[in-house]
Amino acid sequence: MVERLTAEARKTALKELSGWTEVAGRDAIERTFVFKDFNEAFGFMGRAALVAEKSDHHPEWRNVYKTVEVVLSTHDAGGVTQRDIELAKAMNAIAAQLGHG
Amino acid sequence: MVERLTAEARKTALKELSGWTEVAGRDAIERTFVFKDFNEAFGFMGRAALVAEKSDHHPEWRNVYKTVEVVLSTHDAGGVTQRDIELAKAMNAIAAQLGHG
Repeated sequence: MVERLTAEARKTALKELSGWTEVAGRDAIERTFVFKDFNEAFGFMGRAALVAEKSDHHPEWRNVYKTVEVVLSTHDAGGVTQRDIELAKAMNAIAAQLGHG
Repeated sequence: MVERLTAEARKTALKELSGWTEVAGRDAIERTFVFKDFNEAFGFMGRAALVAEKSDHHPEWRNVYKTVEVVLSTHDAGGVTQRDIELAKAMNAIAAQLGHG
């Protein structure tokens, strides 16, 4: 089983993850992506969904038109793990390809 | 411009919309769909996204693994309109085809 990151490891990982911050009062990380329109926002979600499904690690996310709010945490571990960091990196890469880095 | 439904018209429409209820404290309607897994939940979202984009009327929605929480309201009209009722019906039809009606 994958282990929760220590507070220090989480902070170090976040430094390299543009846009991601710790969620207040919860062992999780979050980022809000703002795209050009719904087409682009849902395009991002579609690509991120494929990555999530392939790695069997899924986001909590909310979409309102061109905005996608994402929260990542590893349920089984009760907090942020390397799997969240990897999904966050993948999401940033997808967003960057859409011109939102 | 599409007009807000009266409270009476909204109630009448909701009677025929399985699973949808009024949102407390807001002129909007909501339904939570629970699917078999993420594949099915995101499949629902993909089909619903195409309907939303085609009609240029988009949901507020949140997905956590197999669950999709949807809130519908028409921003321009400041409340629930016939466009929300139509999108809700379309979502119910998609969910029903996935075995969740």
